[in-house]
Amino acid sequence: MPGSSRDLPHPEVEELVLTDVLFALSDPPRLAIVRQLAEGPLTEVSCQAVGGEIPKSTRSHHLKTLREAGVIRNVPHGRQRYVSLRREDLEARFPGLLAAVLGPEPERAATPAEPDPDLAR
Amino acid sequence: MPGSSRDLPHPEVEELVLTDVLFALSDPPRLAIVRQLAEGPLTEVSCQAVGGEIPKSTRSHHLKTLREAGVIRNVPHGRQRYVSLRREDLEARFPGLLAAVLGPEPERAATPAEPDPDLAR
Repeated sequence: MPGSSRDLPHPEVEELVLTDVLFALSDPPRLAIVRQLAEGPLTEVSCQAVGGEIPKSTRSHHLKTLREAGVIRNVPHGRQRYVSLRREDLEARFPGLLAAVLGPEPERAATPAEPDPDLAR
Repeated sequence: MPGSSRDLPHPEVEELVLTDVLFALSDPPRLAIVRQLAEGPLTEVSCQAVGGEIPKSTRSHHLKTLREAGVIRNVPHGRQRYVSLRREDLEARFPGLLAAVLGPEPERAATPAEPDPDLAR
């Protein structure tokens, strides 16, 4: 199993539920987070850099929804957390879905801009 | 433009919003309706045959959500209504999405069974 997931539960790949994944992706701020994780030069980024303009509590809730649906992995890394897209797991379970969702799409949600130093905990 | 859409508004293909489509598909009963429309021998079926086991008001709400997101077309046909999947429009706007969602997927929502003669109106 990749990652240590010491604190937070993550569904196994065979437990991923299509409608949960679709719901997790159906909110513009959450989809913006997923796009950021998919497009950044790193596949894992610190929570500090994720969803910078969203208030911390809202961002926390979005990350929880994405994690519980199995879209992202959120693992501790020292005093911070690292968040990554579960690209391979999603592809294995729902082939083509993530590519279709991330594909050329005109009306993107606004891209988060500033990193927020509050999120690390 | 296909269909007459005399009564109900339908978004044009270029107006379809990804997150609205994902949300419409993220509810198991709505996804079951979409699967039924995708898999049936007819591409257009009477509302009578759609989502048979769901209460009429709930089904009505689901059809509205699907229509407003642009997933289905719902047009009058005499005293009944005909509902069809907007497969080509979805493919044009979000290539590969519908195929990925409808692809082999283990935990399907229960398939609606009995046609409900109440729905025609």
